[in-house]
Amino acid sequence: MSNSFGKIFRLTTFGESHGVAIGGIIDGCPAGISLDLDLIQSELERRKPGQSKIVTQRKEGDIVNFLSGIFEGKTTGTPIGFNIENTNQKSKDYSHIKDQFRPSHADYTYEKKYGHRDYRGGGRSSARETACRVVAGAIAKQILGELGISVHSFVKSVGNICLEKPYQDLDFSLIDSNIVRCPDSVKASEMIELIDQTRKNGDTIGGIIQGVVKNCPVGLGEPVFGKLHAELGAAMLSINAVKGFEYGSGFEGSKMLGSKHNDSITIENNNISTTSNNSGGIQGGISNGEDIYFNVAFKPVATIMQQQESLDKNHKKIIVEGKGRHDPCVLPRAVPIVDAMAAIVILDNYLINRTRTL
Amino acid sequence: MSNSFGKIFRLTTFGESHGVAIGGIIDGCPAGISLDLDLIQSELERRKPGQSKIVTQRKEGDIVNFLSGIFEGKTTGTPIGFNIENTNQKSKDYSHIKDQFRPSHADYTYEKKYGHRDYRGGGRSSARETACRVVAGAIAKQILGELGISVHSFVKSVGNICLEKPYQDLDFSLIDSNIVRCPDSVKASEMIELIDQTRKNGDTIGGIIQGVVKNCPVGLGEPVFGKLHAELGAAMLSINAVKGFEYGSGFEGSKMLGSKHNDSITIENNNISTTSNNSGGIQGGISNGEDIYFNVAFKPVATIMQQQESLDKNHKKIIVEGKGRHDPCVLPRAVPIVDAMAAIVILDNYLINRTRTL
Amino acid sequence: MSNSFGKIFRLTTFGESHGVAIGGIIDGCPAGISLDLDLIQSELERRKPGQSKIVTQRKEGDIVNFLSGIFEGKTTGTPIGFNIENTNQKSKDYSHIKDQFRPSHADYTYEKKYGHRDYRGGGRSSARETACRVVAGAIAKQILGELGISVHSFVKSVGNICLEKPYQDLDFSLIDSNIVRCPDSVKASEMIELIDQTRKNGDTIGGIIQGVVKNCPVGLGEPVFGKLHAELGAAMLSINAVKGFEYGSGFEGSKMLGSKHNDSITIENNNISTTSNNSGGIQGGISNGEDIYFNVAFKPVATIMQQQESLDKNHKKIIVEGKGRHDPCVLPRAVPIVDAMAAIVILDNYLINRTRTL
Amino acid sequence: MSNSFGKIFRLTTFGESHGVAIGGIIDGCPAGISLDLDLIQSELERRKPGQSKIVTQRKEGDIVNFLSGIFEGKTTGTPIGFNIENTNQKSKDYSHIKDQFRPSHADYTYEKKYGHRDYRGGGRSSARETACRVVAGAIAKQILGELGISVHSFVKSVGNICLEKPYQDLDFSLIDSNIVRCPDSVKASEMIELIDQTRKNGDTIGGIIQGVVKNCPVGLGEPVFGKLHAELGAAMLSINAVKGFEYGSGFEGSKMLGSKHNDSITIENNNISTTSNNSGGIQGGISNGEDIYFNVAFKPVATIMQQQESLDKNHKKIIVEGKGRHDPCVLPRAVPIVDAMAAIVILDNYLINRTRTL
Repeated sequence: MSNSFGKIFRLTTFGESHGVAIGGIIDGCPAGISLDLDLIQSELERRKPGQSKIVTQRKEGDIVNFLSGIFEGKTTGTPIGFNIENTNQKSKDYSHIKDQFRPSHADYTYEKKYGHRDYRGGGRSSARETACRVVAGAIAKQILGELGISVHSFVKSVGNICLEKPYQDLDFSLIDSNIVRCPDSVKASEMIELIDQTRKNGDTIGGIIQGVVKNCPVGLGEPVFGKLHAELGAAMLSINAVKGFEYGSGFEGSKMLGSKHNDSITIENNNISTTSNNSGGIQGGISNGEDIYFNVAFKPVATIMQQQESLDKNHKKIIVEGKGRHDPCVLPRAVPIVDAMAAIVILDNYLINRTRTL
Repeated sequence: MSNSFGKIFRLTTFGESHGVAIGGIIDGCPAGISLDLDLIQSELERRKPGQSKIVTQRKEGDIVNFLSGIFEGKTTGTPIGFNIENTNQKSKDYSHIKDQFRPSHADYTYEKKYGHRDYRGGGRSSARETACRVVAGAIAKQILGELGISVHSFVKSVGNICLEKPYQDLDFSLIDSNIVRCPDSVKASEMIELIDQTRKNGDTIGGIIQGVVKNCPVGLGEPVFGKLHAELGAAMLSINAVKGFEYGSGFEGSKMLGSKHNDSITIENNNISTTSNNSGGIQGGISNGEDIYFNVAFKPVATIMQQQESLDKNHKKIIVEGKGRHDPCVLPRAVPIVDAMAAIVILDNYLINRTRTL
Repeated sequence: MSNSFGKIFRLTTFGESHGVAIGGIIDGCPAGISLDLDLIQSELERRKPGQSKIVTQRKEGDIVNFLSGIFEGKTTGTPIGFNIENTNQKSKDYSHIKDQFRPSHADYTYEKKYGHRDYRGGGRSSARETACRVVAGAIAKQILGELGISVHSFVKSVGNICLEKPYQDLDFSLIDSNIVRCPDSVKASEMIELIDQTRKNGDTIGGIIQGVVKNCPVGLGEPVFGKLHAELGAAMLSINAVKGFEYGSGFEGSKMLGSKHNDSITIENNNISTTSNNSGGIQGGISNGEDIYFNVAFKPVATIMQQQESLDKNHKKIIVEGKGRHDPCVLPRAVPIVDAMAAIVILDNYLINRTRTL
Repeated sequence: MSNSFGKIFRLTTFGESHGVAIGGIIDGCPAGISLDLDLIQSELERRKPGQSKIVTQRKEGDIVNFLSGIFEGKTTGTPIGFNIENTNQKSKDYSHIKDQFRPSHADYTYEKKYGHRDYRGGGRSSARETACRVVAGAIAKQILGELGISVHSFVKSVGNICLEKPYQDLDFSLIDSNIVRCPDSVKASEMIELIDQTRKNGDTIGGIIQGVVKNCPVGLGEPVFGKLHAELGAAMLSINAVKGFEYGSGFEGSKMLGSKHNDSITIENNNISTTSNNSGGIQGGISNGEDIYFNVAFKPVATIMQQQESLDKNHKKIIVEGKGRHDPCVLPRAVPIVDAMAAIVILDNYLINRTRTL
């Protein structure tokens, strides 16, 4: 069950970094939706390795093949099966880590949990799995688009370089105007410079992605364990390298007084809205029609080009040193993943909500 | 499905703040466990209203009645049904809010989602529901205790008053030594003073609870969507008033370099451990045997004793003012809830893990 | 998870025959439904012990108490918690079977599975649990009623006495006109006589219940594992004492030629229908608008007033003899249970189907 | 969710008869199992079209490709992704039925449910999907084999030709000794003759498959909705063309007296057993260590080579006549499917049962 996500619109994924292919099955996609397959592929391009100088130079075609569930251009309501072949299976690249437990990787935990693991490129623990989420998310985004709902994610910080403007002052159409995917060209340049310098030092760096859902209808999300933000949090925390999630006022809100934090409700021209949005568009776990916004914290990538102490499978002390082509910063490539997971959560809750009244 | 939590050890809850009773069903509790029912009741006492001057002065007996699943003092493996009567149903207290949408409450979203709601005391959106989680969590804690695993939650900050010591320097036996449940008597006094002052101002204040799981075995947690920290995050974010979750290095980790963030693995006297623990005891979503620690951010309580602008059911502008007995700060009473949800997640994953090898 | 049934409209039950109470939680009931609570109680009366001379003379009040989820007469969309107190806890009645494994009861399997069991009256394995299903089913039936869908179950056979008329020739309004719940007064008299004679012999007898769903809309049921008849089958097979399920042509259909079995599709006055209904209203797992009908086979009750060889807990050979008040035939009381489970399945699939197109 | 089966050992499938490929994902397969991939393929050969004169002469390679979850010959505990290419996509064969609603097929129900369907070869409603179940079942069978548990299915009847011997008197090693898969050579010849004659008449015929699980440990199955036979029933009823399921005494048991039906429990040489087995190896939904046996009724295949009245998409009356290569009787090819579904249910319950005690 742990390789599935969503209740009605439900994605199940499979695949290891260096196996034959990765892929997935989307169950519960509504029937009769005209899908633009090029848009799905273009989302994959945003996640693809080798797309710029600040991401891994590994090459993967990342071409998605749809195997079922779409007929004459439209969804049929039956499961959408798809796969993405692993065309870059350079297994020899990884033979040196076969018996190693790399620091802050999942080598040790997989070995102990399962007694056996595919060590090549991290196997199932590789972020390569997230390409499948991007496929499902791209479909969800198209369906949300038909409903007038949009999802926008962007890089908010890299290390200590952080956007100061609130998201309302940003132009989301600029997100893809630079290689770091920060819609502020000045901050973007600083971030790119920092990542590039970090890469030259053989090091890696973390950061924060912010996501914004606009035009979400009132009423999505389910009390009590299915709160919309709890599902968004679970979605984001399931992405590789994520260490934290907050929505609305978030951790800062914990320092505030209620009198400052509360969002007054008002009405103008028959439009109900709140005068502030510390609630992040969600009250009692249910969307209230305001923008939903949240932050996702990513740690620095664990593979660094420096020597580190660790153990091997026989529990002997060893020195580990990263080789090959790795991301100095995962943020630029993680933007479409955050988009995808947010879109899946919103669509899933949209569909569930249709069952709550007759 | 949204009122259930957990996969194998699974809690389903029901109940409104001012209905007849709240309660729940625990399905999948292992058979043959001797339960100390007094310990369960004592966890409820930690969550109970009226326990000190810094929490709501509302009185509720909060006596749990077990109805099934326990026979001759031991669990039978069949569902444990329980309820807690609502002895304090002062419905008239709430008639004044019958038609109001209180700011930053769930009144508006419930009304729009369901077209109809139990307005008394927040109905289902009331934090009263969490008493049921405390019951299930207290059972989970006892079972974890038999396995040598312990869960420790405490108040880390209230407003801007924050513990500076890392949790390793705290004495968890002091958590309940003061009414705010902060195991540092100096900070605790400051927090109590702040809450008391806030209450006198008719205001409320937020804060952070930290949770620590000690002696968790290696191997709990499931790739890829069932990562242990994703389940902990979902659990915590489902608690009323929670705005954020982070584990290990958390949001601070997003500013770090990989070379500083990585946890080297070492061995001493046949004990494998990491020399630092930015991973927060979880790598690739699977526990590695180190302490699991996390922070949970709570917003200030929405009900304040001040005038606020809002709308009523007919979308007319109104002035709302809190009445009655409310918490100026939810943190002291939320400590056993965080304990409970953490215990449920760990036990559930412990049981699931038993199915992963033959 | 095994004490829950349904995906959207989801019932979870708890309780042992001689515990404090049995009860359940209904999650996912649509909001805004006006419920007639008397109708729910009257369905319980149909299942209640002591209702006639051909059922157990045990007395249970079987009064359902609703604890949540209903406000001002209407469902709120939040979980409906309810319980039924066990007023007839004559535990001493059962002390003689404390250490016995009664033939064809669940004593032995529960003991071996869980290592410990509530032996009183069968504990969790008692059919008393089904009262909770009747409560949920009575709610589902009311909601289906608003949609124009009706469910009709009746006793088709007891032992070798079997209705010869097809259900189309029966008057469902007569189902409750006799104590065996067979809508054919001649056959009913024979059945009652057979059950009465069987009871006098200290024996028990099985039979078949037929269920019919009328006016089910086209499109309910989900390929491939969620076929409507697979869910009906799972529902019926989960009822105590059930040994078989068939729908439409059923086992007889296995002897037929395709040319005789196929149901031609035709149209008259814009109404599409089939000229025969061997499909039982379901094609490819999806309702086609025709009547859904099915048979459920019940074995004879295991408790008989005769001596039988068996073992005790210590694996010593013993002679077991039934005592107390037991049903000579479970069929009359099982009719509302079949009704209930069918209604839950149909409503659940009705709600799910609303998510299959935008 | 409806394209998934199983709770811990969980299969999700995708694919249409004439799409690019069919396939599936097995989540929750225990790690460290050495799989014999040839055995899996050989199970597929048993289901494959074209294998004998009494099945469809359509040709499909039905070669399974494993894409993940197996490394160095052993399962890794991560999802096993696989596909089977549709090499025989003769879409033109089906253009004539594009707008037809074939009698007793799912054409009409899919069209009305989804508003759009892949009409080629039945699309998702084709029994081709069951090849994926055979793959998962073959893996489950291997794992059960390591536990000493075996599953045996065979054709018990075709039309009115029925095995008279109880399964205990059959030699299961003869199941595959003839093309109809009935382990009694005399009956098998009669069945083959009947099928062949039926085929020549352009007609089809149904039948019954019996399944037997030997050496199942005591304790598998979960009260109350997860009864082992309820899960077996749901599994079997989800197979195309199945109309009924019964276990143990089944429908015949409904005619019996309790005094004849009850299975006495006895002990010999420390082996506990029952002197009869009307319970079919399951009491109270939990396996008791005796043989589990059940019958599955299949209707005749809907596609016949005769003229039938029906409607087209525009609701005009038409004459439908089968073309191409179809099965005159689905039974011989359904034997491995019944095997597969039984194996999945037993393994899944074996794994779940490991969580029921500490």
